[in-house]
Amino acid sequence: MTDYPGFKFEVLHEDSASRARVGRIDTPHGSLRTPAFIFCATKAAIKAASTADLEAANVDIILANTYHMLIQPGPDLVAEMGGLHKFMGWDGPMLTDSGGFQIFSLGQGTEADEIKSAGARKQAPLLEKLTEEGATFRSPRDGSRHTLSPEASVEIQRKLGADLIVVLDECTPYHVDRKYTADSLALTKRWADRSLAEFERGHDGRQALYGVVQGGVYEELRRESAEFVSSRPFFGHAVGGCLGAQEDQMYDVVRYSMEPLRCDRPVHLLGIGGIRDIWEGVEMGIDTFDCVTPTRIARHGWALSREAPSFRQNLRNAKFRNDDRPLDEDCDCIACRRYSRAYIHHLLKANEILGLHLRTVHNIRYMTRLLATVRAAILSDRLQEAKQDWLHGA
Amino acid sequence: MTDYPGFKFEVLHEDSASRARVGRIDTPHGSLRTPAFIFCATKAAIKAASTADLEAANVDIILANTYHMLIQPGPDLVAEMGGLHKFMGWDGPMLTDSGGFQIFSLGQGTEADEIKSAGARKQAPLLEKLTEEGATFRSPRDGSRHTLSPEASVEIQRKLGADLIVVLDECTPYHVDRKYTADSLALTKRWADRSLAEFERGHDGRQALYGVVQGGVYEELRRESAEFVSSRPFFGHAVGGCLGAQEDQMYDVVRYSMEPLRCDRPVHLLGIGGIRDIWEGVEMGIDTFDCVTPTRIARHGWALSREAPSFRQNLRNAKFRNDDRPLDEDCDCIACRRYSRAYIHHLLKANEILGLHLRTVHNIRYMTRLLATVRAAILSDRLQEAKQDWLHGA
Repeated sequence: MTDYPGFKFEVLHEDSASRARVGRIDTPHGSLRTPAFIFCATKAAIKAASTADLEAANVDIILANTYHMLIQPGPDLVAEMGGLHKFMGWDGPMLTDSGGFQIFSLGQGTEADEIKSAGARKQAPLLEKLTEEGATFRSPRDGSRHTLSPEASVEIQRKLGADLIVVLDECTPYHVDRKYTADSLALTKRWADRSLAEFERGHDGRQALYGVVQGGVYEELRRESAEFVSSRPFFGHAVGGCLGAQEDQMYDVVRYSMEPLRCDRPVHLLGIGGIRDIWEGVEMGIDTFDCVTPTRIARHGWALSREAPSFRQNLRNAKFRNDDRPLDEDCDCIACRRYSRAYIHHLLKANEILGLHLRTVHNIRYMTRLLATVRAAILSDRLQEAKQDWLHGA
Repeated sequence: MTDYPGFKFEVLHEDSASRARVGRIDTPHGSLRTPAFIFCATKAAIKAASTADLEAANVDIILANTYHMLIQPGPDLVAEMGGLHKFMGWDGPMLTDSGGFQIFSLGQGTEADEIKSAGARKQAPLLEKLTEEGATFRSPRDGSRHTLSPEASVEIQRKLGADLIVVLDECTPYHVDRKYTADSLALTKRWADRSLAEFERGHDGRQALYGVVQGGVYEELRRESAEFVSSRPFFGHAVGGCLGAQEDQMYDVVRYSMEPLRCDRPVHLLGIGGIRDIWEGVEMGIDTFDCVTPTRIARHGWALSREAPSFRQNLRNAKFRNDDRPLDEDCDCIACRRYSRAYIHHLLKANEILGLHLRTVHNIRYMTRLLATVRAAILSDRLQEAKQDWLHGA
């Protein structure tokens, strides 16, 4: 039975009206308070913020993407440099994903949002085949062929050295039918056991493994998958895969996944973290979220705000031209403490990259403040009121 | 006679072997130690660093370019927002130039370095005519026609509100003959008196005016120009214009300009600030320098270093792939304290904009440390040794 001596998940308080809970995950690189938002340092960098900026914004945990690390600079180089923590100057908790999501979603061109920009498109792998062994794809960088197997994913993540790592799964597209999804889930389960075996083979206590719940949009398959991962010696669980076309269907799928999961392990919701998603997910028992949206929209001119229903404002809008207020009167980030909306509007008009930094730092701080609000609300048994207050009109 | 009650220039120590001196310029926004490097926040932003980053790097003074402010967001908007200091979140000393350099050099396409990138080219004005009244050009932004006269430049700079402002001059190209240069200098002198008159008309003690030494590469014209500005009630002087084709000729031209200048006013060298230029300029009595190079080369992958003769290294070079040392072992900037050359190399390979920030912050800190070294050397009467030590082999 896999043991995680350097890790601990402790539930500190449970909501009486929902599955929401406040907890703490201890890792060899310190602790994180849950519910938490995991910020995406895709290629070992939060594009427009340094790890010092993350600390100033009270960030507990970040993630890097195994697929991107595989392409550049490669896991061996990262290992030679002492692992991802040292390489990217981050001494706190860190998660890596399995690499599967990028290969299945980008490789098949379904992740429209990801491939909008030319830069992202150049990063997209070409999925050549999917077999029992693993997924074979070509690197967009040099055309080299790679097979990402469950064992390879664990091995790569071991070289990267993140605290929390994730098993390889097949991430099914939205449009596939029940038969395809069931077969895929069976493969994902076999891969999970191979991942566990490989993990235990090299386990030195520095990493903890998450098993992924799949099953598409099908309730019984989600239940089967959740029961399966609960029966295996994972440290935590992740809810992944296609989560439906509409927000409401996504919440149903998360609910199907959550109900059978054991309650003594942390649960991560993969790639989802809109403002409403967080309030809803927390109620369903989700402990951690990750999403590129806060930092990505920052680069496109948006700052997160309290204004429903979108909770964002585009600073390019001419109405901000002479608006001398900060992005958010209540925010303590450097963008809000030093600069006005008018200045950030000017930076957009003048194509100044400082604006990317200021909006990124603001959006990161917005998310850490949101999650702090969520945790405080759970601890004081006021989650419902806090949710309604934040989502008013949304 | 123009009086500058809120300003003071004090020479604290003079070198015995050269015109080098350590001083202090007091402004309504605090003091700066001289010799100093003035960092270029061209469009009211140091592209990849915030004003908080500048403070952390011990930056005393920055500048913004009047031409760029005129084009976007316009001086009236800046005034409405409380002036440049408040607008751009910088509470320290600040200089603006007259706007002439961009109009004459970019407008005639001689500033090859500036217009290399498409972005800069789009910013270039079209110089339509130059008359006694001023320079007429079209905005590259909206095609609107502007006339920049001596009075208009002072008025725009008054709205921007920098502490140190500069008179409009004609910046002659390198290839013009003595006759053209002499006529141009005569115009520049008439413009200087008009600038002073306009400055005194609106003078409220918050700004101090610099007169510019022109005269091309011609020694007598430089002398005539320096004697002229010394005879007028400027707070400080700036050495401008085409400074020759070769480094040595540039130093001759600066020397011609410096000799007749009064010693009780600070002298700024416009647009020059290479590593060797600073050591040479200081010996000739220059008190402040400005140059876009440290921040511009940072964006192109270069980090300033102690290695002669170029004093820079390109982190894109494959030799840095697994170099786990910081950019500079002695530097205390965040890039050097947290990250390795290998990481910064990775950021370049992965096209991550965080690299622009890290190299920018490093290069800024490099320059403030260089100028601190220069000041300490003058104060301890060791300027020659310090210069040789820094430039060894260059």
